[in-house]
Amino acid sequence: MKRRSVLQKAKRERILAFVREKGESSRGEIAREFSLDKKAVSLVVDGLLGEGIVAVSGFRDSAAGRRRELLAINGKHGVSIGIDLGATHVIGVLSDLAGVVLERAFFEIRPGLPVELILEQMKIIASRLLSSPKAARSVRSVGVCVPGFIKPDEGVSLIAENIDGWRDVRIRELFEAELHAAVCVDDSSRAFASAERWLGCAKGVKDFVALDLGYGIGLGIFSAGAPLRGTDWKSGEIGHTVVNPDGLPCACGNRGCLETVASGKAIARQAAEGIRAGKSALLHELTHGDPDAATAQDVAVAATMADPFSLSVIRAVGAAIGLALANTANILAPSLAVLGGGLVSAGSTLTDPVKESFHRHCMPGIREHVRINVSALGADASARGMALEAAEIVFAGV
Amino acid sequence: MKRRSVLQKAKRERILAFVREKGESSRGEIAREFSLDKKAVSLVVDGLLGEGIVAVSGFRDSAAGRRRELLAINGKHGVSIGIDLGATHVIGVLSDLAGVVLERAFFEIRPGLPVELILEQMKIIASRLLSSPKAARSVRSVGVCVPGFIKPDEGVSLIAENIDGWRDVRIRELFEAELHAAVCVDDSSRAFASAERWLGCAKGVKDFVALDLGYGIGLGIFSAGAPLRGTDWKSGEIGHTVVNPDGLPCACGNRGCLETVASGKAIARQAAEGIRAGKSALLHELTHGDPDAATAQDVAVAATMADPFSLSVIRAVGAAIGLALANTANILAPSLAVLGGGLVSAGSTLTDPVKESFHRHCMPGIREHVRINVSALGADASARGMALEAAEIVFAGV
Repeated sequence: MKRRSVLQKAKRERILAFVREKGESSRGEIAREFSLDKKAVSLVVDGLLGEGIVAVSGFRDSAAGRRRELLAINGKHGVSIGIDLGATHVIGVLSDLAGVVLERAFFEIRPGLPVELILEQMKIIASRLLSSPKAARSVRSVGVCVPGFIKPDEGVSLIAENIDGWRDVRIRELFEAELHAAVCVDDSSRAFASAERWLGCAKGVKDFVALDLGYGIGLGIFSAGAPLRGTDWKSGEIGHTVVNPDGLPCACGNRGCLETVASGKAIARQAAEGIRAGKSALLHELTHGDPDAATAQDVAVAATMADPFSLSVIRAVGAAIGLALANTANILAPSLAVLGGGLVSAGSTLTDPVKESFHRHCMPGIREHVRINVSALGADASARGMALEAAEIVFAGV
Repeated sequence: MKRRSVLQKAKRERILAFVREKGESSRGEIAREFSLDKKAVSLVVDGLLGEGIVAVSGFRDSAAGRRRELLAINGKHGVSIGIDLGATHVIGVLSDLAGVVLERAFFEIRPGLPVELILEQMKIIASRLLSSPKAARSVRSVGVCVPGFIKPDEGVSLIAENIDGWRDVRIRELFEAELHAAVCVDDSSRAFASAERWLGCAKGVKDFVALDLGYGIGLGIFSAGAPLRGTDWKSGEIGHTVVNPDGLPCACGNRGCLETVASGKAIARQAAEGIRAGKSALLHELTHGDPDAATAQDVAVAATMADPFSLSVIRAVGAAIGLALANTANILAPSLAVLGGGLVSAGSTLTDPVKESFHRHCMPGIREHVRINVSALGADASARGMALEAAEIVFAGV
């Protein structure tokens, strides 16, 4: 393939992003969007058609009665795989280049599982998805997301918070050799944001944040239509913004971080304390009397069943999340905040106090413009977003 | 002038930004930076030379002994004016397109001055600078910055915090008619960040924040080399991030905002209280016994003279600033934070507690990468940055 200049690549990427976002678009629409003439549009579009990345998806009659070709991403041209490693799961999805899920795999992780076994499971899931008959397409890539810091150019996961012993894992190296496919790595919250951007409620939204409320808490950010990554791709550590300077010690070494109050881990801790103190008969029952077995999920369930102790925990969690989100919105001025992750299963029990606290703490003039939505993509969101990020490797014309 | 496509414009802007950032660069360097061939580079560069925006600034001998032309921004091609309106001043600078200041003007604002008089002074300053013999160049533009929300496309300043009665001021409309020059409007903190980006310690830094510590507190953000503006250009309201949810009421209507503790306004309030309570003989003396005359400047001076009360105020101010900056850095992962504004005159009395608090509250893995520098651009920083933003109008080839 001819080597493209940085600026040619940028043009190609922007046109592809436009086609992807619109679903279907005509050459005329592309020309108008970028103030390009017909010839310039054809130069790029014919290239994309030739490569098979874009296909003619149909026709539309113009007002003048002329048939206009409609272009769309050619999902069938290739596949990509997204693997999402969390504190409690490995989720894998096989998706086409348009983001349609063709197959799915899941593996539950229990605390203390050795890193080698987790990696082995991730590779098994990736291989299984790649060897599916549905994956038999010419272009294939794999994306792996992990909660925590990464080294994107080397495809290394530096640390996965909440997974014991996970340090400096050379994911690309380990996976590429076995899978014979291009491999990229990102943080789970950024992958979640990518999913919302291309498949979820942030379609067409230029400035938004995606708040990933799970065992840990992370934030994916899009600014002016592009992912905001920061120095060494370390952006989005909202879980370690301080909501109470005199608060509890955090695993990161500081005090009073949002995660000490509102993470799945912190909620489980509060549940155990509540059960021990005899504050919730319902939680006692849900955990069969074992305080250490309590999970955030149990508290969410008990709260929706109006258990007073669980309700007060979830309300305090929501207030802390709303405060951290308000501070973040004051800095970034997004027009949308998407809430996702396991914790949103608590429903309005959680989201009402989040919104109330956000409204109290975010600056007038900004708060009116921030819609707060709950993600509709469910547990597979990060894996699906990561598959799309991996598809970008293909789109970029490696 | 021929109408350029969005993508051609983007190419031109990126090459111009590269030339500007490098100071001097050869066609070969531009070709390498963007993986362009000679012909493509010449197409853009010859255009810029023809328009007069870029000029040959010298020659360099290559290893092979060939003389290579060096290109630089042609400062002489035009001028731009930056007008910075603050709670206590109007500062104007006339600068060439390379950012060199040719002339300067200053007007002090006293509290309660009617909006019409302030606008009149701003126009007088702008006209005086534009009628300077040094301004007699072919291309001219004017930028006005105001602390607060703006409507950039209409050139309207929606609100200037801390200036009574300043609402929905149609700056572009008011100024363009009288000045016969293109006029643009931005927030003062973003203008400060632009100054650091092109003239100060953020040269060549892709991800940084510029913290403007004055009568109010604002933040300018650059992300991946571009200004981060957010929805309706409302980004950067760090002064209204909450550092103490149970804190004092803020002018914005919320409670415990950074500005309730650490703004020039809040420091003056604390000084007045301290004088009334007989806590500082030095402040009493500096203000000639009038507590209401106390300013943040007085407290900064008294603190550098080791006045215990003023020291404790400045330390608490520094701690609050460090906390808000840490929370912001956790979200954005910048590699540099520049501190500017009147308050930095307190020197290490302020910056030491800022750094100490930042280090305590910012997440390990991020804090090691954030340099904290004090701006070397002084009181004219925002005006100079705004002049450069106005120059962009020229560069963009209106």
